[in-house]
Amino acid sequence: MEYHSINIAEKFAKFSEHWSPKIIAQMNDYHFKLVKFQGEFVWHDHKDTDEVFIVLEGQMLIRFRGHAVAVKKGELFVIPKGVEHKTSAQAECRAMLVEVSGTLNTGDAGGDKTASCEDWI
Amino acid sequence: MEYHSINIAEKFAKFSEHWSPKIIAQMNDYHFKLVKFQGEFVWHDHKDTDEVFIVLEGQMLIRFRGHAVAVKKGELFVIPKGVEHKTSAQAECRAMLVEVSGTLNTGDAGGDKTASCEDWI
Repeated sequence: MEYHSINIAEKFAKFSEHWSPKIIAQMNDYHFKLVKFQGEFVWHDHKDTDEVFIVLEGQMLIRFRGHAVAVKKGELFVIPKGVEHKTSAQAECRAMLVEVSGTLNTGDAGGDKTASCEDWI
Repeated sequence: MEYHSINIAEKFAKFSEHWSPKIIAQMNDYHFKLVKFQGEFVWHDHKDTDEVFIVLEGQMLIRFRGHAVAVKKGELFVIPKGVEHKTSAQAECRAMLVEVSGTLNTGDAGGDKTASCEDWI
C-alpha cells in the first residue's frame, strides 16, 4: 500500500509539457492526474464518466455549446459525462483532474493533443 | 448540470464544526467533501472503498497499526479500503476528502464522532 504522502508541487516539478495529464494516485478505479496547459484544447466529451477539474495555479475557461465558465485557482468544476466541452487558458494553468482510469483527454475526438492516459509520475 | 465553479474557500467559510464532512460536489457516484478537524479521531476502516485525503491547510497525522504518516498542506494520501486508520491533527486541519457517496466517516466503528454522510453545503 501507499504509505507515503504525495506532494503535489513536487509532482508538478517533474514535467513541463502541456495537455499531457500525469497520474499521481489511484483510488479504486479512479485516477488523480496533474496537468499543465495553455492555449486552446479541442471540443470533446467523455461518454461514460464525469470529470473533475480542480485549478491549483492560474485559471482556465471551460466552454460549452452556448456558454462558458471561468474556473480560478482554488475552484473545482464537475463536467458531466456526455457534455461537449473545450478547455483553454491564456496563461499556463495547473490543475488536478479526477476521472475514471483509462479516460482519454480528448474523449473520442482524437487529434494531435491526444495523450497517453497511462503516464504515472 | 453544474455550470458554476465551486470555490473551496467560500465553502469552508460556511461551517466551523470539526469531524463533520460537508459535500461540495458529486462526480459519478463519488462525493468531494470538505472537513475541518483537530484532536484525535477513532480507529476505523472503510471495507468497500479507498479514501483520498488532500490537505489544504495545516497538517494531519494518519496512524496505521504499527506506523504513521504525516500529510501536510499540498499533499494527497490514498487510504486503501479495509485498512484500519486513525486521523489526528494537533492544530486545526482543513482537508478535501474524495470517497464513494454514502461513506460514513467512522466506517462501522460508530461512536459520537459519527457524522451524516449526506450534508451538502
